[in-house]
Amino acid sequence: MEGNRDDLMRIIQSRYPKLSKGQKLIAEFILKHYDKAAFLTAAKLGSSVGVSESTVVRFAIELGYEGYPELQKSLQDLVKVKLTTVQRLELTHNLVDTENALKGVLKADMENIRSTLEKINEKTFDEMINAIFEARNIYIIGLRSSNTLADFLAFYLNLFLENVRSVHQGYSDIFEQMIKLNEKDLVIAIGFPRYSQKTIEALDFAKERKAKVCAITDSLLSPLAARADYSLIAQSNMASFVDSLVAPLSVINAVIVSVGMKKKEQVGEVFGILEEIWAKHDIFN
Amino acid sequence: MEGNRDDLMRIIQSRYPKLSKGQKLIAEFILKHYDKAAFLTAAKLGSSVGVSESTVVRFAIELGYEGYPELQKSLQDLVKVKLTTVQRLELTHNLVDTENALKGVLKADMENIRSTLEKINEKTFDEMINAIFEARNIYIIGLRSSNTLADFLAFYLNLFLENVRSVHQGYSDIFEQMIKLNEKDLVIAIGFPRYSQKTIEALDFAKERKAKVCAITDSLLSPLAARADYSLIAQSNMASFVDSLVAPLSVINAVIVSVGMKKKEQVGEVFGILEEIWAKHDIFN
Amino acid sequence: MEGNRDDLMRIIQSRYPKLSKGQKLIAEFILKHYDKAAFLTAAKLGSSVGVSESTVVRFAIELGYEGYPELQKSLQDLVKVKLTTVQRLELTHNLVDTENALKGVLKADMENIRSTLEKINEKTFDEMINAIFEARNIYIIGLRSSNTLADFLAFYLNLFLENVRSVHQGYSDIFEQMIKLNEKDLVIAIGFPRYSQKTIEALDFAKERKAKVCAITDSLLSPLAARADYSLIAQSNMASFVDSLVAPLSVINAVIVSVGMKKKEQVGEVFGILEEIWAKHDIFN
Amino acid sequence: MEGNRDDLMRIIQSRYPKLSKGQKLIAEFILKHYDKAAFLTAAKLGSSVGVSESTVVRFAIELGYEGYPELQKSLQDLVKVKLTTVQRLELTHNLVDTENALKGVLKADMENIRSTLEKINEKTFDEMINAIFEARNIYIIGLRSSNTLADFLAFYLNLFLENVRSVHQGYSDIFEQMIKLNEKDLVIAIGFPRYSQKTIEALDFAKERKAKVCAITDSLLSPLAARADYSLIAQSNMASFVDSLVAPLSVINAVIVSVGMKKKEQVGEVFGILEEIWAKHDIFN
Repeated sequence: MEGNRDDLMRIIQSRYPKLSKGQKLIAEFILKHYDKAAFLTAAKLGSSVGVSESTVVRFAIELGYEGYPELQKSLQDLVKVKLTTVQRLELTHNLVDTENALKGVLKADMENIRSTLEKINEKTFDEMINAIFEARNIYIIGLRSSNTLADFLAFYLNLFLENVRSVHQGYSDIFEQMIKLNEKDLVIAIGFPRYSQKTIEALDFAKERKAKVCAITDSLLSPLAARADYSLIAQSNMASFVDSLVAPLSVINAVIVSVGMKKKEQVGEVFGILEEIWAKHDIFN
Repeated sequence: MEGNRDDLMRIIQSRYPKLSKGQKLIAEFILKHYDKAAFLTAAKLGSSVGVSESTVVRFAIELGYEGYPELQKSLQDLVKVKLTTVQRLELTHNLVDTENALKGVLKADMENIRSTLEKINEKTFDEMINAIFEARNIYIIGLRSSNTLADFLAFYLNLFLENVRSVHQGYSDIFEQMIKLNEKDLVIAIGFPRYSQKTIEALDFAKERKAKVCAITDSLLSPLAARADYSLIAQSNMASFVDSLVAPLSVINAVIVSVGMKKKEQVGEVFGILEEIWAKHDIFN
Repeated sequence: MEGNRDDLMRIIQSRYPKLSKGQKLIAEFILKHYDKAAFLTAAKLGSSVGVSESTVVRFAIELGYEGYPELQKSLQDLVKVKLTTVQRLELTHNLVDTENALKGVLKADMENIRSTLEKINEKTFDEMINAIFEARNIYIIGLRSSNTLADFLAFYLNLFLENVRSVHQGYSDIFEQMIKLNEKDLVIAIGFPRYSQKTIEALDFAKERKAKVCAITDSLLSPLAARADYSLIAQSNMASFVDSLVAPLSVINAVIVSVGMKKKEQVGEVFGILEEIWAKHDIFN
Repeated sequence: MEGNRDDLMRIIQSRYPKLSKGQKLIAEFILKHYDKAAFLTAAKLGSSVGVSESTVVRFAIELGYEGYPELQKSLQDLVKVKLTTVQRLELTHNLVDTENALKGVLKADMENIRSTLEKINEKTFDEMINAIFEARNIYIIGLRSSNTLADFLAFYLNLFLENVRSVHQGYSDIFEQMIKLNEKDLVIAIGFPRYSQKTIEALDFAKERKAKVCAITDSLLSPLAARADYSLIAQSNMASFVDSLVAPLSVINAVIVSVGMKKKEQVGEVFGILEEIWAKHDIFN
């Protein structure tokens, strides 16, 4: 299962025809009740559907896991996305040593980047960079906590490109800001659990208008990925009431650097002008 | 030199009285012309001030470095802060393999967190958390790209605490937003190279008003640290035209988690209310 | 009908028991089909319900109008609120002389203020000013085009008062920004046709929390007024696709001046400090 | 002096060569000390420079005024612009009856519009509307309290036009937001006393880039007008610590209606789409 846990549901569906009768019962139970399954032992999952523990273990191996614990871990990852903040606060208390939150959080964030590095699809990344250069207009949307990432990306892309538009909740509605969106445009949507409903609606609108969509999100199972032509996956997991946007920010750094490198001459020119402006108006210390 | 390169200038000054006459010449040259010294070999630095190469090497060892290359590295780190974007764009081209910006950037960001983990002062972190609970009002300021970090921190602290104020460039000036600041208040300032002049002015204003100041910045040599009671150091280095705010964001995650854990009951209550609001108004997918 | 056209529907309902049989037919028709009635002559309205033209005229007088034209004007005012922008664009074309939009608009805005001056309730105004001074915290909300008015009011009140909070669509949801709202607080809501649904929801939330509500709106029939303890009425009518916020802005000027005058000493002190800040930082030309 | 008080200083300078010796003394005194002269009687002004009261009166008539009181009014108008908020607060106390701030303010605002109606130049208005249609990109800037007017104008123009950009203090500096400005672009700058220094700097930048500039401001003597190709004058006078933006907002209404009327078909189409979006997403009550 080299890093593709996100495809768990699809794998179950694609392997389904070849499964034994007992394994099919397990598959059906998981597809319907994965939130319960995630917290059952192999024995209990088996008895729930009327098969033996060893059938459950073979089912996990059939799907490509080393054993049942690995399958269960994948299920729990799926479930976590759906937890309420209250449940997650409880988890934080268990998982983060309050005496050492600082080191715990920094280590978890290193792990988030490491895991992103393993899982991220370089080909998708390159396609996304190309899509940025091919678009008529580029709309960047990220609401709630992802707003910070969207602002950061828009701030830099605006320095290099003439056709970047930031879509915000604010004075006017997000749909009004995208009223001229069409099939020549690209929407870059940034969203992590818990996914803002408004961002999803923006992507539905983008699809109606036949615009290209690139999602920067945490999983191929996310509702953003479901509406995207390209999905860059960055791990936001922190087993805490705060979702970490550290790995996503690193991915956005990579997007900015790649776009900047491809436009190196223009970027150099823009920076030359900016340096003059900055000096004249004492912007920097 | 256990991670304390930031103190290079202070170390030179404190060791100065005990240095030999030749070493004093080197010290004076570095204090005045560190931007030139950073790119000289030991031999050239020696000849610039009229001493031998081996005197330069002994000088480095005297300061606590393993040798001249380590001293030179410290000097180059100091210089980098002062580079213009145009110079940095040139560096990016050299250092980031355009064919593989994605992996290059993610690895650099893991290294930024790893280095932060080594250097960050846990005692300062704890003192800052305490200062947050002792303050009458907490003002959070981060301008330009650090705005994203300031918004993220304010978004979460506002959920737990009643006395958090976000200071923004916008409708009114930052000073107007701090007009009621006094010695019972805490200002959390976030700033990374290139340091916004306006943030520095805000801290000068805070010091006039005798408010406590906590800086989240990249070095004890930063102008924010120079005005702070507490400085949390996070590495923002990316040898690129974009400064990475990944490690600083991870440190801010740690601040949020620590504050939240200390206010666990209230946070649980707030989240309970928020879950109801979110459900009622379809905020999440 | 001293300025109370807004109560038309209530008046009809309260007078209903005392009306003649023929007048009751007219009343019922208007309550159900006021959008049609608004554009019928007295004769046609009569024939629609099977009564004479003179019965319709007596009905208007019975309600307190000078005649049928005044009743019809009230009905048209009600209808206008419900027009779509497309219908209103058509009206603009008819009513504004494109050759002279400038004078037409300025004259219409003078008339908006004149009419506001006649209709506004001074006692309510005074009660609102008192409510501002009695509140624990003051939340100001105005979304979409009313955002400009809310920002303007908050900008000035923030200079005099310590407890003013601006509620915006943005990074966080408006409900999250009001999470600590309680019965000691005041919500000042600003909204004009077409009324933002989100502002209405904010007021429903405020009522649940038992906070006091002051509405600045265009009519006692507005959904904001229906949820308010105090309603300041300012005319926003422009018979155009743009609603004029000129008279509302003038009313807000009056609120600011009144609050400022009651806090004259503190305002003087604040302005003294601001003048120093402004001079030091070259804020003004 | 049909409305051209703003040119007072220029008139004095142009008439200077033809003045009598005594009149020249008065002219010099006024040019240097107009802030004092504004509050002197004709007799005292005369004795200050060593001429008779009747020489002062003839001087006023020579400049085109009906008498000295009219000249003095012009001088006082000039001075008002320079008053600090503390001085203006004092004036408010004298001029606004605290018992009746509501009516006083509304009446003053009607007068502001009436006076604007008299003074505004229709030809300039038409030229500005044309400039909007001819521009490659339109940048709208208004800082501090004028931000509300700029947002309102940008909100509506963005519905009709594809090339409108709002320039804000915020995440990035205003100059960065205008980095692509060139001679084919139009900058609409909105500013009233006390004029924001940053807006002036933005216009200096616009002139360097040879962009067209349209100012919406309170006087031809304003520093915005001095940098503008077209100046729309709206009276913001309120003899209070708050400058009234009521007449300027009315002028902006006229700009929006005029642009909308000229693009009637597109506006109708846009509104059709918006109505669908608004209905689908429950934007309005």
